[in-house]
Amino acid sequence: MAHVSIIGTGNMGQAVAGVVSRSGNSVELLGRSDAHRAVTGDVVVLAVPYGAVAEVIDQRRDQLTGKVVVDITNPVDFETFDSLVVPADGSAAAEIAAALPQSRVLKAFNTTFAATLASGTVGGEQPTTVLIAGDDADAKSLLAGIVSGAGLRAIDAGSLRRARELEALGFHQITLAAGEKIAWTAGFALVA
Amino acid sequence: MAHVSIIGTGNMGQAVAGVVSRSGNSVELLGRSDAHRAVTGDVVVLAVPYGAVAEVIDQRRDQLTGKVVVDITNPVDFETFDSLVVPADGSAAAEIAAALPQSRVLKAFNTTFAATLASGTVGGEQPTTVLIAGDDADAKSLLAGIVSGAGLRAIDAGSLRRARELEALGFHQITLAAGEKIAWTAGFALVA
Repeated sequence: MAHVSIIGTGNMGQAVAGVVSRSGNSVELLGRSDAHRAVTGDVVVLAVPYGAVAEVIDQRRDQLTGKVVVDITNPVDFETFDSLVVPADGSAAAEIAAALPQSRVLKAFNTTFAATLASGTVGGEQPTTVLIAGDDADAKSLLAGIVSGAGLRAIDAGSLRRARELEALGFHQITLAAGEKIAWTAGFALVA
Repeated sequence: MAHVSIIGTGNMGQAVAGVVSRSGNSVELLGRSDAHRAVTGDVVVLAVPYGAVAEVIDQRRDQLTGKVVVDITNPVDFETFDSLVVPADGSAAAEIAAALPQSRVLKAFNTTFAATLASGTVGGEQPTTVLIAGDDADAKSLLAGIVSGAGLRAIDAGSLRRARELEALGFHQITLAAGEKIAWTAGFALVA
């Protein structure tokens, strides 16, 4: 059984916590008032907005050594809604991996809206697929097992460099939902 | 009724020609041996590999003035399969628009495999959605009408800047199919 720490109690943090619970693994959910509590999970999900990630890393760098760290962020420029705020040839995941060289960083959950994680379906029509990118095969397998244990589909999306494409996909999906082209309960479904 | 010229007779050119025909619009399909024939369509689809686009533009620049030009390319670096060959902050569509300032350039059909355009479904499970990005609303409406007339879904994906995200999505979908995570008859379906 895996033990998962989730930092961030917003809708995404709660949705990922629900996935972990449904898969029969144990979960701790840490909010702002828990900054003094060390994370105890083997897997740590950074479920805070992109702009808050650096502070979390500063606070918890030592605690994250040797752990699987999951970046779920969509680093959208919410002022212009026209680009990401990370370098065009990089990704938030690449930045986090550079900041945490002793951790095994994965990108996941950024292409699934909270509602699709909770319901297990995209718009009630297709099973929800969690795309997982990363450079450590064992870490990806561990997270994939948690995801599939909750009844969702997990797909190995390739190396951590693919986080760039996952962030583009997440951004585009957000623009489509914000523009009312799709519902926040729906989005891109991956048909195999 | 629209008249559509398709430059390129490969599997994507043929698939887009099928869409145009099914929608009741007229289509001409031009191959390599037709370089001397001027395009007659109001809409011109560049259905050649990214590496061949510059030559087509050189040959046909004057013919493309005033027309709706549709870029369907996925400018993947097929040597490394690890990035696109266009600048990270740009897109093939942006390059084509810069080269054809007298045309109305759209990005479309790059996130749909040929088989999904032909069958009208993603893996037999969801209707095929064509994402259309561009800066000219009338041009987008014209193409959306052709697509929906063929029984497919058309979605306005935003300004031509969104071509960057559509090319990331197309690239990622190709890596998933090449890695046998999904079939070439399936891929990302958009659930509204």
